[in-house]
Amino acid sequence: MSDRIIPVRAPLASTHIYEIDFTVCTLVRSEKSYARLLESFSTRGFTAENSEFLMLDNVRDNRFDGYSGLRAAALQARGRYILFTHDNIELTEDGHARLREILADLTMLDPGWMVAGNSGIEHGADWRALPLRYIGDPHGEQRDISRPTRVISLDENFLILRRDLMVFPSIDLQGFHLYATDLCLQAELAGGRSYIIPFMLRHHSGGRVDEVFDASRAAFSEKYAIQLRSRILTTPCSVVPLGGLATVRVTTNHWMDRLRRKLGVRDPKS
Amino acid sequence: MSDRIIPVRAPLASTHIYEIDFTVCTLVRSEKSYARLLESFSTRGFTAENSEFLMLDNVRDNRFDGYSGLRAAALQARGRYILFTHDNIELTEDGHARLREILADLTMLDPGWMVAGNSGIEHGADWRALPLRYIGDPHGEQRDISRPTRVISLDENFLILRRDLMVFPSIDLQGFHLYATDLCLQAELAGGRSYIIPFMLRHHSGGRVDEVFDASRAAFSEKYAIQLRSRILTTPCSVVPLGGLATVRVTTNHWMDRLRRKLGVRDPKS
Repeated sequence: MSDRIIPVRAPLASTHIYEIDFTVCTLVRSEKSYARLLESFSTRGFTAENSEFLMLDNVRDNRFDGYSGLRAAALQARGRYILFTHDNIELTEDGHARLREILADLTMLDPGWMVAGNSGIEHGADWRALPLRYIGDPHGEQRDISRPTRVISLDENFLILRRDLMVFPSIDLQGFHLYATDLCLQAELAGGRSYIIPFMLRHHSGGRVDEVFDASRAAFSEKYAIQLRSRILTTPCSVVPLGGLATVRVTTNHWMDRLRRKLGVRDPKS
Repeated sequence: MSDRIIPVRAPLASTHIYEIDFTVCTLVRSEKSYARLLESFSTRGFTAENSEFLMLDNVRDNRFDGYSGLRAAALQARGRYILFTHDNIELTEDGHARLREILADLTMLDPGWMVAGNSGIEHGADWRALPLRYIGDPHGEQRDISRPTRVISLDENFLILRRDLMVFPSIDLQGFHLYATDLCLQAELAGGRSYIIPFMLRHHSGGRVDEVFDASRAAFSEKYAIQLRSRILTTPCSVVPLGGLATVRVTTNHWMDRLRRKLGVRDPKS
């Protein structure tokens, strides 16, 4: 049997664990836009040696949405990073070398980053905040930052995920709205953080909020109203108060454990 | 460029997306125990054609813990399912065919299952509940269920994850305690569910709660006290009340959007 054992390599110790740098994974509605994206990536250093291009084909109908698409693509991804993008972005100045450099910097700055993008609400800002942006679009070009800056939510046009600290969108949400916000929130719940980075590209769309958006937001809010509730979680050998209840943790842990013993629950300590 | 595009396959539509059925990934402290595990898997139908064995080598020192180990192993996994196990389990009656069958049944029962195991607290039970168990160990053999049963937490000895609906442990927790509970909670936050299944094996340990456990539980509780808080989340083009605050969602969404417009925030609708 011993010849069949594969030792697991520690991700941080081995850089050669990844065959290539980038898996560029795109939700494709327009083949023409996608051709422009591919051409611009090809021109700016994303070669077959360092990158692969996964197409989430929505040309005829929506087979993949923002929530399901990333999970499907990740099963086939070979890169160190997954770029999850809209089809209407175009690289106009920065390329492969610059992106590698920024992401190495970001990892030095915060080894626990999980999601990066180019437009989002700064961490710690209040609800009136405008997004920080490092992007060109029909409204013009904005360079609000000069180094990676922590955010609590991101725009969907261009997202970067790490395969060694992977995070996925929720499976109980659908559509094309708020999946980047969901990714940032899932990353936070897993103990990670999100950033916008100074990597310039052009997004051939000014953004749009339609009626579908209100329904997406309601679903999002309803989902997390349930899932972020305070609760007393019972594990096979203990109770753990979660959420606001954790503030009374010290007392509850003790009397609950005592009560459980009194009620005859098998105590793994004994 | 077009010859370099790889179409993403929909996971549900293609069964041949996975090279093998199972990636058996084990935290190995004792080589002797691991040899017994491997022998018992080999005897019961887990062959090189349908399975691979990934070793998280902790024999000399703890290079991987319960939280980091699964992420490291997943980068190398090729199976449809990942079995994440302790080294001191042994298959004694059920094998490869039975496990495939149970997991197919479970997927029919609940397409959104994310984590399975053999001992855990039933969903909906109150905090006094004993774990449901389908396992043999030094305390004897228990067969509390006859079909997959939903749980809110699981024991760590034997866990099953799906690569198409993958969920990972938190990166801000460490050690060998509560990582199955963390996986169940992360699955729930992502919209998934956890189950115990009637797959018999022997766990050569009666379970143990040491002083380290109290520190692990405190860290767990403190982490989620912050991360499960109610909050108003600002996205690049909206505000979303989360947690308890979502109950006042209908009103807040409207007045906050109006206030934001008044304050000059660019409205993507216009």
